[in-house]
Amino acid sequence: MKRIADSTVRRLSVYLRFLEGSSQRGLTTVSSAELARHGGTTSAQVRKDLSFFGSFGKRGLGYSVPELTNSIRDILGLGREWNVVIVGAGKIGTALAQYDGFRPRGFHVVAVYDTDSGKVGTRWDGIVVRDFSQVARDLASQPIDIAVLAVPAEGAQDAVRRLVDAGVKAILNFAPVQLKVPPDVAVRSVNMAMELEGLSYELSSRAR
Amino acid sequence: MKRIADSTVRRLSVYLRFLEGSSQRGLTTVSSAELARHGGTTSAQVRKDLSFFGSFGKRGLGYSVPELTNSIRDILGLGREWNVVIVGAGKIGTALAQYDGFRPRGFHVVAVYDTDSGKVGTRWDGIVVRDFSQVARDLASQPIDIAVLAVPAEGAQDAVRRLVDAGVKAILNFAPVQLKVPPDVAVRSVNMAMELEGLSYELSSRAR
Repeated sequence: MKRIADSTVRRLSVYLRFLEGSSQRGLTTVSSAELARHGGTTSAQVRKDLSFFGSFGKRGLGYSVPELTNSIRDILGLGREWNVVIVGAGKIGTALAQYDGFRPRGFHVVAVYDTDSGKVGTRWDGIVVRDFSQVARDLASQPIDIAVLAVPAEGAQDAVRRLVDAGVKAILNFAPVQLKVPPDVAVRSVNMAMELEGLSYELSSRAR
Repeated sequence: MKRIADSTVRRLSVYLRFLEGSSQRGLTTVSSAELARHGGTTSAQVRKDLSFFGSFGKRGLGYSVPELTNSIRDILGLGREWNVVIVGAGKIGTALAQYDGFRPRGFHVVAVYDTDSGKVGTRWDGIVVRDFSQVARDLASQPIDIAVLAVPAEGAQDAVRRLVDAGVKAILNFAPVQLKVPPDVAVRSVNMAMELEGLSYELSSRAR
């Protein structure tokens, strides 16, 4: 399968949410124009996004809500459970561990790790904070799919090295640093300050 | 000024962090190859990204670290303070209000709002939780630049309507919903589950 742009994958997630909402409202078909409006894009782009993955919809009839919902769920790998660990039991890590939007989509937080002995052994919502020095041993007996990295910038690359050595192939990075990983490891980064910089850029460029 | 793609603005934020690190390590020049490596892109893309904003660097000499740092800070609107409010005193809102990465870049959290009378009046790190029903009155006396929306999906659009009515022109949205705003209001969305979907997509497409 050819390489699909991140922006396309993001729009699939948005289309999926709109389709799920449409289903709840009892709709059985949606048009590419409706998908476009909710995805912040054009009908042509919707058709192009979906064409990467097969032939969907009928001219003049739109897309079948249940069929397209299932197809996008399948494309995004949401037909199964994914085991997730959170590394870093600070403020962001705590919020993520308790975030209730993961479970309904099949992302199951199975463990939280920290290096701080004062935090190791404490419990949140039934999840015990484990000692990060034991991560390779733990993952040998309970493999995980995705690690969420919520550690300070200075410790991030070292934590990633250990996770990759332990076999982790996908990392969601909240540390404000560009991570170095082998080509077979997928990384997505979320940087809260950088998101705000996108807005300060917009506000400034309008004022010019 | 022509419209610059979000992806370009994101890379400017990454280049800026690399330049700041270079400065701390005592470097006075960097090459486009180094910027490219840290930005996960090519030298040609670095030159293109920077060309939107003027003429930087000298062939064979690279870019002056202090000069390019100042230029990017200026482009991103980081030469001033921005007043930020957080709407929603739940888990994500709490973590964001206490996030220590905003202040060093000039993003100053001046207030947190909630509609829950049990939370209004409580205090975190010196910031009192205010009653969201008073937001228009508060903003009339203390204008703010950016609102961070950390409320449940079902309340998000109504909260945005009130913020826009109160004059807010930039919103960082953590609610899992596509917001409708007037064209003069900038929105960026961060959806934690969608970020994980990007990774489950990657893992699934490799397994196909």
